[in-house]
Amino acid sequence: MYSIDAAQLATDIDTLATIVEPGTRGTTRRAFTAAYRASRSWVRTCMHEAGLVVDMDAAGNLVGRYPGLRPDAPVIMLGSHTDTVMEGGRFDGAIGVLGAIAVVRALRAHAITLQHTIEVVDFLAEESTPLGSLIGSTAMAQGFTAEYLARHVPGWGDVASCIAAMGGQPAQLTDPLRTSGMIGAYLELHIEQGPVLEAANVPIGVVTGIVGIRRCDVICHGRPDHAGTAGMQHRHDALAVAAAVILAAERAAQQRPGTVATVGSLTVAPNQTNVVPGSVRFSLEMRSVHWPEVLAIWDECMQALTDAATHRGVMCEVTPYEDSPPLSFAPWYTAIVADAVAPWTPTVVHVPSGAGHDGSMIGVIAPVAMIFVRTKDGRSHCPEEFAAHADIVAGVNAMLHTVCALDAVLA
Amino acid sequence: MYSIDAAQLATDIDTLATIVEPGTRGTTRRAFTAAYRASRSWVRTCMHEAGLVVDMDAAGNLVGRYPGLRPDAPVIMLGSHTDTVMEGGRFDGAIGVLGAIAVVRALRAHAITLQHTIEVVDFLAEESTPLGSLIGSTAMAQGFTAEYLARHVPGWGDVASCIAAMGGQPAQLTDPLRTSGMIGAYLELHIEQGPVLEAANVPIGVVTGIVGIRRCDVICHGRPDHAGTAGMQHRHDALAVAAAVILAAERAAQQRPGTVATVGSLTVAPNQTNVVPGSVRFSLEMRSVHWPEVLAIWDECMQALTDAATHRGVMCEVTPYEDSPPLSFAPWYTAIVADAVAPWTPTVVHVPSGAGHDGSMIGVIAPVAMIFVRTKDGRSHCPEEFAAHADIVAGVNAMLHTVCALDAVLA
Repeated sequence: MYSIDAAQLATDIDTLATIVEPGTRGTTRRAFTAAYRASRSWVRTCMHEAGLVVDMDAAGNLVGRYPGLRPDAPVIMLGSHTDTVMEGGRFDGAIGVLGAIAVVRALRAHAITLQHTIEVVDFLAEESTPLGSLIGSTAMAQGFTAEYLARHVPGWGDVASCIAAMGGQPAQLTDPLRTSGMIGAYLELHIEQGPVLEAANVPIGVVTGIVGIRRCDVICHGRPDHAGTAGMQHRHDALAVAAAVILAAERAAQQRPGTVATVGSLTVAPNQTNVVPGSVRFSLEMRSVHWPEVLAIWDECMQALTDAATHRGVMCEVTPYEDSPPLSFAPWYTAIVADAVAPWTPTVVHVPSGAGHDGSMIGVIAPVAMIFVRTKDGRSHCPEEFAAHADIVAGVNAMLHTVCALDAVLA
Repeated sequence: MYSIDAAQLATDIDTLATIVEPGTRGTTRRAFTAAYRASRSWVRTCMHEAGLVVDMDAAGNLVGRYPGLRPDAPVIMLGSHTDTVMEGGRFDGAIGVLGAIAVVRALRAHAITLQHTIEVVDFLAEESTPLGSLIGSTAMAQGFTAEYLARHVPGWGDVASCIAAMGGQPAQLTDPLRTSGMIGAYLELHIEQGPVLEAANVPIGVVTGIVGIRRCDVICHGRPDHAGTAGMQHRHDALAVAAAVILAAERAAQQRPGTVATVGSLTVAPNQTNVVPGSVRFSLEMRSVHWPEVLAIWDECMQALTDAATHRGVMCEVTPYEDSPPLSFAPWYTAIVADAVAPWTPTVVHVPSGAGHDGSMIGVIAPVAMIFVRTKDGRSHCPEEFAAHADIVAGVNAMLHTVCALDAVLA
């Protein structure tokens, strides 16, 4: 059974982890920084040395090609990202890109020639930035509006200039760079960032799809009264309204296994010990692979907000700003992945992705599958993020075998 | 029936309101600022012109004396403060000092000589500052520890220097400036800062006492997990624990008429939309004129905190930092005030004070009473703070008649 060069992959992961923003904790290599540019220069070399023909597309995605025998056939795309959050970990994104390079290295080492061209993509700016997230994969699958490209972000300049500074050609991004039929299948290896595989005691798992997310911003306008002299019946306490929604969101998600709902950000004004909270602003999001469950949690939260606000004479504004319906991976494709995963795990575990990934965007134009690697304590986006190298290697081997299976199946 | 010079009082209130920190909204004359020093120079002149013999005590309190026929008898003290909060109103504190000066002016105008000496006090720094609050009245009634006087406040220097800069003599403050028996009665006129008198449609009311306050700081330590990948059953959501306490505090106070409980300040970390709140810090306070009710609300809140934290695997630290038992005014004294108030109001309304005042401190060494003036919409500590001049005049007239009654009653 073919397998990848585990030692070389370990060296690559270690090397990439050394290229970080000076003076930061954990692994900090945020998109558009000098450290990010330096790391991509290294990734380009790494791709080149693995035998890939490297180019940067108009979106600033690094694309390495391993040509197949049928140049006109749809490509098999392997990808992820190498940017991180502030004080993040060394595995999120990185193992998907470096694992894909390891797959190509193994194909060459075993002299396996494929019918389909393999493309390894290091997508530009997957993590949240002031310009947005999933920038490279969105450009590839959807393109951008002229308004978005011209948008000025204070301290950053306009979006187009930021992409140009990374080596992209923003003028070409108003149409998607790829369309349906060009990518035969997209495969992404990623750490799970959750507890399911660890609890099941397996190194890797087959991802069934990516959750749908609804997000909104809520502002509650109450009245800032003196905390000593304003009687309870005279108050318009904006924080009490928020508290009711926080608990309603928690309850609504707890009642629906597999769903989550979160109030992650909340600020109070004037935020003084002896003043009844006059206004509160908070974020609210809910996720599920089943969109009707997202809508049901939404309804419960909005009902709780209305009840709590009416009761207390507080005015509320709800501004939805993200609605990403779930992406269910095609059963024919997850079945192939399950077969490829089977030799490297005691049991084949299926798990949904609670987080968004570049695959969320590529799913618009191509069949997508993902392989997850067990994550210690489910921790991610923090210096403590950890995945055992043996688990990563299992995932990359499963990726290698998925690629070979796809090559036989795809048109 | 004797009455005060309403026009002169209006002029005085208007004049004091012109002495403010440049570039601020509303009335901003915070303690220890140049504007505060300028205003007190004007208050000193105003006292002098009203016929008071003015001196500054070691605490930086401005004290004007109107000598009585019996110099060895306890004094009748009238007082309040002329500092304000940032962007506060023109009535809070000011009407108590300027009203007291108007009382003395009326005594002289009507050639009323009293047995007891009247003292009018403009107490130093009543409102919250980085050095503390109720500074002048605390020095008068309790004195300070050497540690407090030596305490260094970043950007301010030590407490002793700040008091010295206002004209005080901090070395003399380790013992109280006055002791039991020296003050026969203390009387303070203040805006209500609450809705009771307005709802009762009366200009002024008799204060029955000052609420007791318990305050604490709560820190909840949960775990900052990814909001997409951490299932509800794996979370340690610090904000959900805080939400349970916010609602428990509201409920506990609503069930006990006349009590209040407030979470006024709350901050979340890391405070990101897509991260489960890892830690939350919030303030919690509860007030009542009946101390057992404060303790009952406290118990309910602590039980809610324990239940919510245990359930979610969140560790909490509770740090109490203020315990001020209530001050119930002596019935013999409030009866005198009620008689003096009666001619100036359609009904004599009794009302507790939900806020602390200089009288809270003087109550340690002397009988205290207060008269409240109706406040529009209960608003205070804001530019919208408003009391009608006719209501203020009614309150000052009641103060004048209380003084005359006290002079006849006191030893």
